[in-house]
Amino acid sequence: MVTSQTPERSKRRRGRGADAPPKPSRDVNYRQLKNPFPQMEVFPADHIADMHDTALRMLQELGVRVLLPEARRIFAKAGAKVDEDSEMVFIGRDIVEAAVASAPKSIACQAGARHRDFTLELGSLVFQPGAGAPNATDLERGRRPATGQDYLEFLKLTHHFDVFQMISPQVEPQDVPTHLRHYFTTRAQMELTDKFPFFFSRGTPQITDCFEMLSTARGLSDDVFRANPHCYTIINTNSPRTLDIPMAQGLIDFARYGQMSIITPFTLMGAMAPITVAGAITLSHAEALAALTLTQLTNPGAPVCYGTFTSNVDMKSGAPAFGTPSHFQASLAAGQLARHLGLPWRSAAGSASNSNDVQAANENQFGLWGCLMAGATVIIHSAGWLEGGLTVSFEKLVCDAEVLNMVAELCAGAQAGRDEIGFDTALAEVEPSGHFFASSQTMARYNTEFYQPHLHDYANFGTWAERGSVDANHRATGVWKDILANFEPPDQNGDGLAALETFIARRTQEGGAPPES
Amino acid sequence: MVTSQTPERSKRRRGRGADAPPKPSRDVNYRQLKNPFPQMEVFPADHIADMHDTALRMLQELGVRVLLPEARRIFAKAGAKVDEDSEMVFIGRDIVEAAVASAPKSIACQAGARHRDFTLELGSLVFQPGAGAPNATDLERGRRPATGQDYLEFLKLTHHFDVFQMISPQVEPQDVPTHLRHYFTTRAQMELTDKFPFFFSRGTPQITDCFEMLSTARGLSDDVFRANPHCYTIINTNSPRTLDIPMAQGLIDFARYGQMSIITPFTLMGAMAPITVAGAITLSHAEALAALTLTQLTNPGAPVCYGTFTSNVDMKSGAPAFGTPSHFQASLAAGQLARHLGLPWRSAAGSASNSNDVQAANENQFGLWGCLMAGATVIIHSAGWLEGGLTVSFEKLVCDAEVLNMVAELCAGAQAGRDEIGFDTALAEVEPSGHFFASSQTMARYNTEFYQPHLHDYANFGTWAERGSVDANHRATGVWKDILANFEPPDQNGDGLAALETFIARRTQEGGAPPES
Repeated sequence: MVTSQTPERSKRRRGRGADAPPKPSRDVNYRQLKNPFPQMEVFPADHIADMHDTALRMLQELGVRVLLPEARRIFAKAGAKVDEDSEMVFIGRDIVEAAVASAPKSIACQAGARHRDFTLELGSLVFQPGAGAPNATDLERGRRPATGQDYLEFLKLTHHFDVFQMISPQVEPQDVPTHLRHYFTTRAQMELTDKFPFFFSRGTPQITDCFEMLSTARGLSDDVFRANPHCYTIINTNSPRTLDIPMAQGLIDFARYGQMSIITPFTLMGAMAPITVAGAITLSHAEALAALTLTQLTNPGAPVCYGTFTSNVDMKSGAPAFGTPSHFQASLAAGQLARHLGLPWRSAAGSASNSNDVQAANENQFGLWGCLMAGATVIIHSAGWLEGGLTVSFEKLVCDAEVLNMVAELCAGAQAGRDEIGFDTALAEVEPSGHFFASSQTMARYNTEFYQPHLHDYANFGTWAERGSVDANHRATGVWKDILANFEPPDQNGDGLAALETFIARRTQEGGAPPES
Repeated sequence: MVTSQTPERSKRRRGRGADAPPKPSRDVNYRQLKNPFPQMEVFPADHIADMHDTALRMLQELGVRVLLPEARRIFAKAGAKVDEDSEMVFIGRDIVEAAVASAPKSIACQAGARHRDFTLELGSLVFQPGAGAPNATDLERGRRPATGQDYLEFLKLTHHFDVFQMISPQVEPQDVPTHLRHYFTTRAQMELTDKFPFFFSRGTPQITDCFEMLSTARGLSDDVFRANPHCYTIINTNSPRTLDIPMAQGLIDFARYGQMSIITPFTLMGAMAPITVAGAITLSHAEALAALTLTQLTNPGAPVCYGTFTSNVDMKSGAPAFGTPSHFQASLAAGQLARHLGLPWRSAAGSASNSNDVQAANENQFGLWGCLMAGATVIIHSAGWLEGGLTVSFEKLVCDAEVLNMVAELCAGAQAGRDEIGFDTALAEVEPSGHFFASSQTMARYNTEFYQPHLHDYANFGTWAERGSVDANHRATGVWKDILANFEPPDQNGDGLAALETFIARRTQEGGAPPES
């Protein structure tokens, strides 16, 4: 159990008055987690091997449609068969296997401060809040197209909770013009947080802008920047078997600069993927291998994170469903394939619910346990995600963060040595029918033994009713408002931020960089 | 995957019209489950052995207070040191070890119909809804002291969901006089369900009444009744280290008749148990061993289920908390001790929340995963439990049953053979950027592949809003009302039920049987 001080907590404590004596309190490191859960297999090993072989066969015999000419040239140069008319690329098994061999098994991610660094490898555990939503919602302001203000507020909430080790693009700031949006989001990430940042892959001009802004703000030389990943992107394939222009370009650009791609075929069983877990994950695996191969052909050893996000549709309506048994099993199967490759990988939780209700809680947590027992290295959409990703909820983020904190507490483990068993300090001290409130062991530990929730309320019914019968959803409103009202950004490189402003002003004047597609 | 027909479902199908052609539909056996989850250890094996040794030392050196003279006589006869003045019993390690050796490792529970039978042993998985609450609540009628009507309605809901394999005493029917209450609850269990019934241990007169009612209603000879457990009771110790009169009497009476006791020290870390997981579970283990020993001294080989229910209090207020990291870890430790003994065991989920909200959902599911990964054989309070057990909620029962159904689906597993991978029937059939809605594999499976929720709603936001923006909690009201409105009891032994009525009429006229304490 690591017990180093977190900036978040020390700041809060300072807020109580610099002269107050430091209180003994529970302090567990949520920033570098190891997955303590035993890993579950949904299929026998020989069937996993069959799925891997089928994926390789698909890449070789059925091929992948690759829309970016440069990507097709890279594949062709490596010996893949390319049909320029159909844009189909047929990738031999040997090419894929060489790429898997060169992909790093361990990725040292460098954040804006050393205590925020983390390593992605099988066994490590990283959480991200829900990402990529066009809408934001909260109980005070309702559901609306997300704005820059929403983006900034979500960023502050993400920074606040240590259990989110990575920044995600939670919502799309739709009131910021698209050719300038990456300046807005990068400035915000450089100013308001020192966690590992995210950049969208929307064409080379935006990507290189982002890399330059990051290096400028954090004072990184080109060599230092390229030596380790300092940021990441998410690459979705267009299932089935299609890699579009900005996604292929992102894979190439991030690999070229030594920055990290997280590859995520986002597939729904019964719609854009086969209806079975085995079929859908075989397709997802093939697509992930194709994308991974492109990174390694671009720059062998480039940091790349294998991944999947596979759930099912409701066959009555065609609507996406999340946190289902099939979603859980798909995570398990993907985990087995990731271990087959030996690579770090991402999975995802999430909810299809339209409000932050019991369905939303149960779906998200059910999917979360699937990811945890699958051994996922990065769990995306682990908090706040509603409507299958169309909306991120302020209250849901706060509610789900409570669950993630409890998972992080489990990562810290527990002890059962002589002091904890406490024959003399507890068990023999208390008479039959007595109580342990005042035992020596309790007195030594009462302030530090248990996790303290930020949301869950243990008041009895009478007290709770007197206080207005406020449910968790409405209490969560108070929690996020309090976090935002008291937010203080971490210490940053002032010169870097000033230089960043100069860069953004110049690039804005030059016309910015529209997204490419 | 077992796919036998469930009575619940065949009935529902008949309701659509006897002449309609049978629809292909998903049909998974939820009645006999095996736990598919890998088991997690919170402590190393040598520390578990230390905890077991410490518990044995406690029983020998510190002793247990046993309030029932007959129980003290049984312990004394076996060689335990008994101090009649203090009512303390000091149980030697050899006595406990012999009892553990004689306790059955597998318990064949006989319900009212053969398809409802199940076996309790390490690896099997049985759920019960929340139990023992003085209050009932639902969104239409509010929170109130529970009545006979509430008892009957909860019984019908418990019968409805196959995933509840055992009947629990969900609420206390407070409007039924205590000397007649066991007639009311036993009649209801015999008439409305064929699942495995529960009887309270409130003194020998009530217990023998219940045994006779069960044998009468189900037409069991004395030999048949005693040959297998046909019912069970829950035995809570009075922590720390006290066994009260009705609990000790229940252990003796159930053992004598070959019926099953589930032993449950219900301890809260920091209050009636040490503040540490290791200390609390060592105490719980000692108490469970003492109770188990009494059953085996009464009748060697009597069916007894080891158990624990340990969570923590909030040290600020002393209020009980559930679904916490400490609760999770306590379940894991208890599971390790149960495997150390080789015995089936019970654990529990539950929530401290005051309403069926996100906190309630997240606490219950978090505790549930602790039980599942601990390998609990019976998971009590797995649905419906609010306020740390003071209230059972109709809506929460429906919401939690959805999660349990999804867990049961995971028990059924998935396949990844040639048909499921579907190279020819799916993967090669669909072109890049196409869809799988009409692939051969989808057409063959669309009606059976996915779990169909009874509560979760996958409508998009617009449709959901048009339908009134009804959250899961309020939808659950419709679900339980529908179940109750359409409830049909299973086929029962009519002669047995008539004889049961005669028995109850006679015993009522004789003055019934007041509870003993």
